[in-house]
Amino acid sequence: MAQPTTSTLSGGTRTENLASWAANLKFSDLPEDVIQKTKDFFVDWLGCTIAGRHHPAVSAIARFASQMGPSSGKSELVNGALNFTTSPAFASLVNGASSHVVEQDDLHNRSIMHPATVIYPAALAVAQDVGATGEEFIAACVVGYEVGCRVGEFLGKSHYERFHSTATGGVIGVAAATAHLLKLDAAQTLSAIGTAGTQAAGLWQFLMDATHSKQVHTGKACFDGIFAAYTARDGLLGTKDILEGPRAMGVALVPGTTNPEAIDQNLGTDYEVLRSSFKWHASCRHTHPSADALLKLMDKNGVAFDDIESVTSRTYQAAINVLGMTGRGETVHQSKFSMGFVLAVVAKKGQAMITDFTEDDLEDSSLREFQQRVRMELDPEIDQAFPEKWQGTVIVTTKSGESFTESVEFAKGDPELPLTRDEIERKARTLAAYGGFTDTSKVNQLIERAWNLEKEKNVNGFVF
Amino acid sequence: MAQPTTSTLSGGTRTENLASWAANLKFSDLPEDVIQKTKDFFVDWLGCTIAGRHHPAVSAIARFASQMGPSSGKSELVNGALNFTTSPAFASLVNGASSHVVEQDDLHNRSIMHPATVIYPAALAVAQDVGATGEEFIAACVVGYEVGCRVGEFLGKSHYERFHSTATGGVIGVAAATAHLLKLDAAQTLSAIGTAGTQAAGLWQFLMDATHSKQVHTGKACFDGIFAAYTARDGLLGTKDILEGPRAMGVALVPGTTNPEAIDQNLGTDYEVLRSSFKWHASCRHTHPSADALLKLMDKNGVAFDDIESVTSRTYQAAINVLGMTGRGETVHQSKFSMGFVLAVVAKKGQAMITDFTEDDLEDSSLREFQQRVRMELDPEIDQAFPEKWQGTVIVTTKSGESFTESVEFAKGDPELPLTRDEIERKARTLAAYGGFTDTSKVNQLIERAWNLEKEKNVNGFVF
Repeated sequence: MAQPTTSTLSGGTRTENLASWAANLKFSDLPEDVIQKTKDFFVDWLGCTIAGRHHPAVSAIARFASQMGPSSGKSELVNGALNFTTSPAFASLVNGASSHVVEQDDLHNRSIMHPATVIYPAALAVAQDVGATGEEFIAACVVGYEVGCRVGEFLGKSHYERFHSTATGGVIGVAAATAHLLKLDAAQTLSAIGTAGTQAAGLWQFLMDATHSKQVHTGKACFDGIFAAYTARDGLLGTKDILEGPRAMGVALVPGTTNPEAIDQNLGTDYEVLRSSFKWHASCRHTHPSADALLKLMDKNGVAFDDIESVTSRTYQAAINVLGMTGRGETVHQSKFSMGFVLAVVAKKGQAMITDFTEDDLEDSSLREFQQRVRMELDPEIDQAFPEKWQGTVIVTTKSGESFTESVEFAKGDPELPLTRDEIERKARTLAAYGGFTDTSKVNQLIERAWNLEKEKNVNGFVF
Repeated sequence: MAQPTTSTLSGGTRTENLASWAANLKFSDLPEDVIQKTKDFFVDWLGCTIAGRHHPAVSAIARFASQMGPSSGKSELVNGALNFTTSPAFASLVNGASSHVVEQDDLHNRSIMHPATVIYPAALAVAQDVGATGEEFIAACVVGYEVGCRVGEFLGKSHYERFHSTATGGVIGVAAATAHLLKLDAAQTLSAIGTAGTQAAGLWQFLMDATHSKQVHTGKACFDGIFAAYTARDGLLGTKDILEGPRAMGVALVPGTTNPEAIDQNLGTDYEVLRSSFKWHASCRHTHPSADALLKLMDKNGVAFDDIESVTSRTYQAAINVLGMTGRGETVHQSKFSMGFVLAVVAKKGQAMITDFTEDDLEDSSLREFQQRVRMELDPEIDQAFPEKWQGTVIVTTKSGESFTESVEFAKGDPELPLTRDEIERKARTLAAYGGFTDTSKVNQLIERAWNLEKEKNVNGFVF
């Protein structure tokens, strides 16, 4: 049953419509599948967060949090080994950085964003700060997904060519989720969105040298979005049309065309969280369609790793742009952005899970040689459908001279092929173990609690 | 006498050259005029900071600092009335927001940036955190000016059309100044620059609705640059070529052409701090050349406010872009961005000091009518020389039908027409009084201390 609205804006801009919707959404408005999917991605996010905790960027950011932040606070780090609590801005900074390390967090297809890694850390930390219930936390996450992903869709493909949309759309999603938990009205929520958008940043340059900006982008999107909402509550006015205004994001950050209707069409009937995909393979999401197609091809035709002479991966332009930047892949993280290396891993191991990318694998000459025999090729039809659909085709030539072709319309984990709850749990346990957290009963207990999140009086204690 | 260098980078990029220079600069390398000018702008900045302290954005940001930051720390807020100390990231966040409120902080002509409002708050807060001496503080400020302004020059005029360069170049200057105080080596300084640049943000959209993003941009540039340097010290790797790389700022944030040579030419012989201008009028710096030309014209030709029928201000395109965005000016802050209103104020009052823009002035029909009779016109020669030179020409038609023309090559406060120390002190005292700080002897004492800053064992206590 819809609740009475508390405030709406009538200036007639799309951004105002979005802010009004975000301010007024109630848990009781949410369809059951939206609630369930929001919990699915929360469990998925928890595993990612603990898996990434040992990354040097996360350690440096955690040190910053302990030096610059308070000595204790209401918000928790998922990584219990750090043994401190802090303010929501810093807890989300650390958790947001950690959850994007292992490239296993979700991917929202149309916006080309990873919403979980920014929305959950921010919403969790703020929910702990304000003492929100499980229901309120879920509603805030839905708001964060909706606003962040719609902004990402608005900014579109050409924006993604230059900017890490997870950060630039994400900071606005974080601001909206935080505003919701702070119970800001529509005008304040609009201010929060404006202040978030004028902080939007995050460039792909780091892919060139395998440096740590990806974690900076997600952690800072959390911090900056929280800044935007708390200051909006306290009277700081954000600009009103940060998306479509004449000096706004659509002009300054988008070299091509924007998708204005994405901002507010079908609000409350479409839910963006239902359009997000799980990552099954532990590699850049752009490699997944080809990886799935290759696995399918090998299985169907009885082709083995050693049989393969060459692979052509037919894909969309954005994949070529991103994956073409990392070269051979000198680090474990970078190797997950090499189409050649990822296809070598799936061909040899039959999977590309988190434990399938190691320092030893980087030195494996059979993988490195296979990698050299993979090339990417632009497929105009696939490109046309992207990012609505993330499709892939592979053409394999065998050493005996045979040729096979296989395509996938959806990758495993796509909304059309979602993970089951068993698979989500298995993945989360594997990620926790990868992060060095071996108390399986604690993991199971936290997962069980997450499945019943709407019944929780608070969201404290999600600490591994 | 030059000191032996401690570390240099040899990858051959301009950004590496800049990072190496920044890491190795010593106070003893600095020419006397550079030291003196750095102190001049510090005194000027102190006045601006206390003057802006009551702005609602500053109050909201200070509340964020007290909620999200530690309950005490080594770094001080210039606004002593707030009565708390905090970590350097938060102290600079608040001070940086406050010093950009009244539009009286300095302007570096070539880069179209306001360096003081980001460099001093960050360097002061970090110097207090690490216990730096006055000499070390001055050297760090010189580094901050040099790196920030060179990045601003690199990004150039077309960047400024879309982005608030004070924030986007400023965050990198802050990172470099902070890195210098933390005694980072050249490689770590390069990391800090990379992490700062991937956070660079700040859009002009707020000018459209008189909202508070300008203070967000400067405060956050401080916070984010400090984040970049402290995390670089602790092992977070920033990308190496954030300026000229294929997915870096020069590509993503610059619609036109960049000025690559600005990054590293004449390092150690040219000093950017010598190229910065004081603001004498309390209005947007783009109005100053026309304001000075109008005052000169009225004085020379005996023209009075009531005599003037119309004014044509011939100026450069960037002025038209920025000043054309605020309309009539509904708030005191916005009125300082209206060429018509500013020229009305100087014509009527003979000056446009901080106390000349009030709520009452907004209602003054004689000012509002004059404002309507001012128009801006693009002058191709003036535009060509910008931003090397900020020139202005005004053409006045009187009610009796006479016409006069006057030009200025330099505005008062330009490097070629700097303020005297007496004028700097007078301006600082006026600003402090405007900010409600009436203890003149304390102001004089802090100014006196600043004039002798290189003899100070620490930089604590600059609190009004």
